[in-house]
Amino acid sequence: MQKRSFSPVELDAADPLRSFRSEFVINDPDLIYLDGNSLGRLPVRTASLMRQAVEQEWGVRLIRGWNEEWMALSERIGGKIARLIGAEPDEVILTDSTSVNLFKLAFAAMKYQADRDIILTDSLNFPSDLYVFQGLDAILTNACFVDVLKSDDDIITNEEFLLDRIGKETALVALSHVAYKSAFLYDMKRITEGAHEQGAMALWDLSHAVGAVPVDLNGAGADLAVGCTYKYLNGGPGSVAFLYVRKDLQDKLINPIWGWFAEQNPFEFTREFRPAAGIRRFLVSSPPVLSARATEPGLDLLLEAGMDRVRTKSVAQTEYLIRLCDEYLAPLGFELASPRDSAIRGSHVSIRHLEAFRINQAMISPPDGARQVIPDFRAPDLIRLGVAPLYNSFQDIYDTIHRIRQIVDGGIYQKMSGKREVVT
Amino acid sequence: MQKRSFSPVELDAADPLRSFRSEFVINDPDLIYLDGNSLGRLPVRTASLMRQAVEQEWGVRLIRGWNEEWMALSERIGGKIARLIGAEPDEVILTDSTSVNLFKLAFAAMKYQADRDIILTDSLNFPSDLYVFQGLDAILTNACFVDVLKSDDDIITNEEFLLDRIGKETALVALSHVAYKSAFLYDMKRITEGAHEQGAMALWDLSHAVGAVPVDLNGAGADLAVGCTYKYLNGGPGSVAFLYVRKDLQDKLINPIWGWFAEQNPFEFTREFRPAAGIRRFLVSSPPVLSARATEPGLDLLLEAGMDRVRTKSVAQTEYLIRLCDEYLAPLGFELASPRDSAIRGSHVSIRHLEAFRINQAMISPPDGARQVIPDFRAPDLIRLGVAPLYNSFQDIYDTIHRIRQIVDGGIYQKMSGKREVVT
Repeated sequence: MQKRSFSPVELDAADPLRSFRSEFVINDPDLIYLDGNSLGRLPVRTASLMRQAVEQEWGVRLIRGWNEEWMALSERIGGKIARLIGAEPDEVILTDSTSVNLFKLAFAAMKYQADRDIILTDSLNFPSDLYVFQGLDAILTNACFVDVLKSDDDIITNEEFLLDRIGKETALVALSHVAYKSAFLYDMKRITEGAHEQGAMALWDLSHAVGAVPVDLNGAGADLAVGCTYKYLNGGPGSVAFLYVRKDLQDKLINPIWGWFAEQNPFEFTREFRPAAGIRRFLVSSPPVLSARATEPGLDLLLEAGMDRVRTKSVAQTEYLIRLCDEYLAPLGFELASPRDSAIRGSHVSIRHLEAFRINQAMISPPDGARQVIPDFRAPDLIRLGVAPLYNSFQDIYDTIHRIRQIVDGGIYQKMSGKREVVT
Repeated sequence: MQKRSFSPVELDAADPLRSFRSEFVINDPDLIYLDGNSLGRLPVRTASLMRQAVEQEWGVRLIRGWNEEWMALSERIGGKIARLIGAEPDEVILTDSTSVNLFKLAFAAMKYQADRDIILTDSLNFPSDLYVFQGLDAILTNACFVDVLKSDDDIITNEEFLLDRIGKETALVALSHVAYKSAFLYDMKRITEGAHEQGAMALWDLSHAVGAVPVDLNGAGADLAVGCTYKYLNGGPGSVAFLYVRKDLQDKLINPIWGWFAEQNPFEFTREFRPAAGIRRFLVSSPPVLSARATEPGLDLLLEAGMDRVRTKSVAQTEYLIRLCDEYLAPLGFELASPRDSAIRGSHVSIRHLEAFRINQAMISPPDGARQVIPDFRAPDLIRLGVAPLYNSFQDIYDTIHRIRQIVDGGIYQKMSGKREVVT
């Protein structure tokens, strides 16, 4: 077995995706950005596309922009997302926010499975997803119980235990494919099949998975999915989300929000709603075009790089990060808060430390004039290091670990206040 | 009484708002744009703001943009919209699309009025609004009947008749303040009071009213309102919408979509949803920032101009348009399809002609090399002429009427095909 290199310079030199870094606007080369799992960087192409979208499409073409460009956006961009998540182009559409999409699909599933009343999820899921389910609980005609499995250690879900809990009353198993805190990666196929065996449906939130790990919705037989575009897809702050409905389910499910873009012909202005066939029936209304427009170049970059190569690099980078963490940070009181096995880990790594909040602050706002590193903090004690293989280098990771070491070893974090700021 | 001028040159010279035209990107001075009621023009300030939002806020500030700028957007911009619609700043918030907002508020109202089951609206309302109500009918626990009053002539609603139909079973009276086809302007105060007398709530869709006519939600005692930002507010294609909930109702109503931006502290990531107090509880999630950002400069322009001056000019312009129409177009088979009385008319004027579709096509794509005029067409026989006082001149109106006259009188429309294109 070949000895693996620990040198970031060698690792970067051997990286087949290294040229993609220049596809992103990197104004300050000294800043290390490890928060692409919260808000991905701006692609260079997006900056120029947005000038065109604002100044030409809106400014000059005005209302004609709808026929010339905008009417087709939701489906065209949905079709590109489909290629990243193992779906057919007509199974995915760009629309609304992740939470609104989750509401629409979970509501539809609960109505479709009217003789069952449980939404099964677990404590690794986004709180925002739990909120949507709790809201359904409050408004649905048929009773709806949100069953939140408590994970033992906040890192890994025991899939055996989860599968055992799926029963004849389970309408929907709804999970985040990659957990937002620990990056635990569920076996989508195994859980979806377990749900189907009991007659339940499976809904996946792909927000932390899409663009970070290969996803195969069709291969897993998944029923429903939602996801955001502003993390690893680099689609811009709060940008338009997407949803997936498996082909054979599309005409069986009813979107609870009857909007005019889901009408068979929105521009006939008939007074009685007639739901469109296919994926369009899960739309509501015209998308916020400028935000929608911004999602496409990031997708093109991922399609050019190929999810297999992205995943290979992501695994190499997160393994490298963990190896450095074991060597340099564990002795300083850090603990890994992500799965050690890359087969069940997404593209971010969380590390735990009692002083995580102040360490994170010292990374973002160095009191000693050192270079800035931007990770994110998750209460009470996690620093989350998001690796975006298209623009993060091995050097970024190496330098980050050594900077954290310096902050803790040198007591630099003690100069920071303990006050928490809002960080998304 | 002074003789009123018919000369567009004189009228424009006397217009106190004429300088606002230069606040908009007008790339082709020969193009007459009378479709600001579908998609408003791009403000010059928006073009530069969007470069900053994309290239600086996202490109350079990255995740820090949330604390520095974006977290405050929905409330700050909501507060500016409030000033245009007679509401307090903490009664209005920028979020989601008009239809999603309508769904949230109408659902909440129907739950709140659980002993009543009728949503009363009329046939002048947007079909998109009717669709949302029909959808509620299909999913609500308590029965919900959507009662659509048929208007006699598709131009004016008989308000007496409408008021008579409000009864003890009416939960909600939901209307568009300005009707999208005819521009009929409802007496908001009269109808809201009529609803309240019967114990019903009043919900107003302001999409065709905001920025076009003065609106006084508080003065009318209105309960709820929604509206879009892409028409007279010049906020960009499909841009983020707004909603209004009267202060005393905010903590009594329940938003059916429980999203993390409506949580008391979204960044605490608690697992049990605790609705925020006040207007924030009607949010769902992070706004599509680029689109949201684009809505502010247009609002500032309207606030600078003042809605009273905007209304005065709008009335003068639509009266001028109708006067010219009577003189030049009525003899060619055109009929006014908007109220003649400006007190009950918004800022667009619809005219009816059997050949409206082809006339509209000849205006947009002149087969004779004449200058372009962009109105919009509404099936089967309406041409809708939207007057945006901030950038439309009296000359625009004069030239449009004479161009229509030329197209019909000269048989130019006969060169156009009868095929309909999608126009929003």
